[in-house]
Amino acid sequence: MGFPALTSLMAQYIIFTYSHLTLLVSFHFLLISYLLKKMNVIKYSKPLLTYSRTSYSILHKSSTNLITARSKTTTTTTKSKPKTMASPNRLKNLSVNFPIKKSESTVSLHPLSRDPFKVTIIGSGNWGTTIAKVVAENTAIHTHVFHKEVQMWVFEEKIDGVNLTEIINTKHENVKYLPGIDLPENLVANPSLTDAVKDADILVFNVPHQFLARIVGQLQGHVKEGARGISCLKGFEVGVKGVQLLSSYITDELGVACGALSGANLAPEVAKEHFSETTVAYQLPKDFKGEGKDVDHKILKALFHRPYFHVNVIDDVAGISIAGALKNVVALGCGFVEGLGWGSNAGAAIQRVGLGEIIKFGQMFFPESRVETYYQESAGVADLITTCSGGRNVKVAKFMAKTGKSALEAEKELLNGQSAQGIITCKEVHEWLDKCELTQEFPLLEAVYQIVYNNAPMENIPDMIEALEDFGF
Amino acid sequence: MGFPALTSLMAQYIIFTYSHLTLLVSFHFLLISYLLKKMNVIKYSKPLLTYSRTSYSILHKSSTNLITARSKTTTTTTKSKPKTMASPNRLKNLSVNFPIKKSESTVSLHPLSRDPFKVTIIGSGNWGTTIAKVVAENTAIHTHVFHKEVQMWVFEEKIDGVNLTEIINTKHENVKYLPGIDLPENLVANPSLTDAVKDADILVFNVPHQFLARIVGQLQGHVKEGARGISCLKGFEVGVKGVQLLSSYITDELGVACGALSGANLAPEVAKEHFSETTVAYQLPKDFKGEGKDVDHKILKALFHRPYFHVNVIDDVAGISIAGALKNVVALGCGFVEGLGWGSNAGAAIQRVGLGEIIKFGQMFFPESRVETYYQESAGVADLITTCSGGRNVKVAKFMAKTGKSALEAEKELLNGQSAQGIITCKEVHEWLDKCELTQEFPLLEAVYQIVYNNAPMENIPDMIEALEDFGF
Repeated sequence: MGFPALTSLMAQYIIFTYSHLTLLVSFHFLLISYLLKKMNVIKYSKPLLTYSRTSYSILHKSSTNLITARSKTTTTTTKSKPKTMASPNRLKNLSVNFPIKKSESTVSLHPLSRDPFKVTIIGSGNWGTTIAKVVAENTAIHTHVFHKEVQMWVFEEKIDGVNLTEIINTKHENVKYLPGIDLPENLVANPSLTDAVKDADILVFNVPHQFLARIVGQLQGHVKEGARGISCLKGFEVGVKGVQLLSSYITDELGVACGALSGANLAPEVAKEHFSETTVAYQLPKDFKGEGKDVDHKILKALFHRPYFHVNVIDDVAGISIAGALKNVVALGCGFVEGLGWGSNAGAAIQRVGLGEIIKFGQMFFPESRVETYYQESAGVADLITTCSGGRNVKVAKFMAKTGKSALEAEKELLNGQSAQGIITCKEVHEWLDKCELTQEFPLLEAVYQIVYNNAPMENIPDMIEALEDFGF
Repeated sequence: MGFPALTSLMAQYIIFTYSHLTLLVSFHFLLISYLLKKMNVIKYSKPLLTYSRTSYSILHKSSTNLITARSKTTTTTTKSKPKTMASPNRLKNLSVNFPIKKSESTVSLHPLSRDPFKVTIIGSGNWGTTIAKVVAENTAIHTHVFHKEVQMWVFEEKIDGVNLTEIINTKHENVKYLPGIDLPENLVANPSLTDAVKDADILVFNVPHQFLARIVGQLQGHVKEGARGISCLKGFEVGVKGVQLLSSYITDELGVACGALSGANLAPEVAKEHFSETTVAYQLPKDFKGEGKDVDHKILKALFHRPYFHVNVIDDVAGISIAGALKNVVALGCGFVEGLGWGSNAGAAIQRVGLGEIIKFGQMFFPESRVETYYQESAGVADLITTCSGGRNVKVAKFMAKTGKSALEAEKELLNGQSAQGIITCKEVHEWLDKCELTQEFPLLEAVYQIVYNNAPMENIPDMIEALEDFGF
């Protein structure tokens, strides 16, 4: 081997090595850039609720250009222009993700590549009939998506010798459970449960909690294959074996993918078409057949959204169910402090602590539920506020505070012996938490239980809430 | 150059190159591992509110062992035991971050390694005197931390020919602004602002918003070096130049590190010692002298926390200030729908949307503020609820809705020409957002502005809130 050949070999080697080195470095550089970018996104934009259709323009680049009005205190005594302002001309590069999410508009609904969906409402009480009215109004408009006629299963009873179904189908009014409200003519009452559901693609469950098991039992074997459900029943069932969402129960029993509807919705106000909002939660099932062929968020928005009844559709069925159940316990706490005459500071404090414990309960037992659901959805904070401003639970608790009587006596005198839901729920929740050795983690839920069932003095609520501090809570 | 020398050179070169390559690769590997780890932490643990003193035991390992009651729907029709329950014996490995945070207990207050802190209250109105009472009660207990005597600057006026300061110092009652409430004897009224603050280590600002600038001007050059402040004034100032927190203003003007106190606190209820909560926000300044030597969260908790007045101390001054200012605008919106007779669903909806816009405003203009502050603190959601349940703003808005009169007329008839804070704030906020071309991002704040200042029909609120949907909101 001569000298030139060696030199050439060396040169080739150097080129080979360095090209590899360059490639490696480039690759690592790209990888690191990507990771850093990812981290920045997490750090700076904090996607509270990601939303894919964001089309605003006052966006992006970096947030470092923004002079923000920082809370950082400085000890400079110079009298130069304060530097702690956010000024508009600096804001052009602002990057923000929107904490308010709205589900997709129905404007963009595509024509179906299947027959229109047939909808059946199961239940015809005050809330059931109200939701049936909402749904039938929408199916009459969106006839390219829904079968216009909506079936409503009605537990048959006689009103002055006439069948309630007959009255509803001729007078278009549920004279027993929603008197004074005109119902759409395309809403058809049906006394046969199995007949009402036989062709239904969408089942809307709206029966009293205690009848659910029986009705679901009757439905077995009669539901159309591939049908979907929405449960308007609030909450979950707590047994010694565990916590189960009512929607999951329906899914487990009937094989129907089931979501939930919940919100700050006092039925009489919705029936009168006073403005309110609600949340529909539905998770696309594994056997989802595709847009235009199956129920999805757009379809559900088209089904429930009205100008007076604003609907947001989300995935988080667990979140809205938990909020819907536990708010009743919080409302008892509010009723106690209200009944004691402690005023609105105290009521707000109970609601604040309550919201925190609802979030904690959700995060603990249903870790897939989202914190945003509780503070951002109608089914979360808004429903909590409405429930704490009135209703059965507050009434019972106030009565207890004012008279010193027991929950049982209060229910007897105020509700003809019917139960306030919070009274049942706080016991179930206590027993469940006790089993998990977690009662101390939920001081408010536990305080309400102790007041209702163990005669704990309600004047001690502040201490009961505070006690946990000693545990580093 | 001979062959062996060349071979040796080449060998050396190869070793040199590869050792560098190895080093480089190792370095990159380490860096990437670190970054990935960081990302995983962010992705998997969701620290809602990190808390360093968590001492519970029902913790950790992984959450994969937990059979959770998932909202995922399944389409299996098998009748096997439902698999969607959370059962207690599976919960032992549960990993949860606690969404409720409480600031550290004062029980663990260490003895100071300095003289006790002297505290001065600047302001003696209804809320000022109430806070002075709270503070003086605490300084009388924690004499190892605070100088027992608390100075309160009182704008001197004559009551039946007698100086108000004299009445307060002899009768221990502020007969003009907080009649009927006994004040602690260690609370000393002082008509001289500069004398009242001259030795003070902690200044508590509690004057009407419009007097702040003048009082701060008078204080310049009279405040002790290293003094710290807490502002009980709510909110921020919006000018054409930008948004500035009042606490930042105090810091900028006086060189006093300043925090804020805000919460669901109607003064008369706190004065009567009815249970309520509040939030104190304070960020340790750069020249923080260390525990036992300077004001920190424990000291502030000891100063403000009472059995009837629960205090949580956090860092987020911006968050509680924004919530404190914008809630008044939301309260106007609530007043409108209440005045229209739309009931509590509608009121709750306005509060929900309002909370969302408050969070958004905070995230946009004070990105260091924390979302949790808004939904988890007394100064956030609880203050919003209290403010929307009554007070000046709701009163004015209801009056407008019921009579069709203007805001100006309403203020004239109801408040003797004084302003409801929301009326001022919604205009300032509108002008600021307009300058930033961001009004469309805040439909509720904008709707309230348009109703108050441009006679927009308030019946359109639902549409105004919904309109944004067309923009993909």
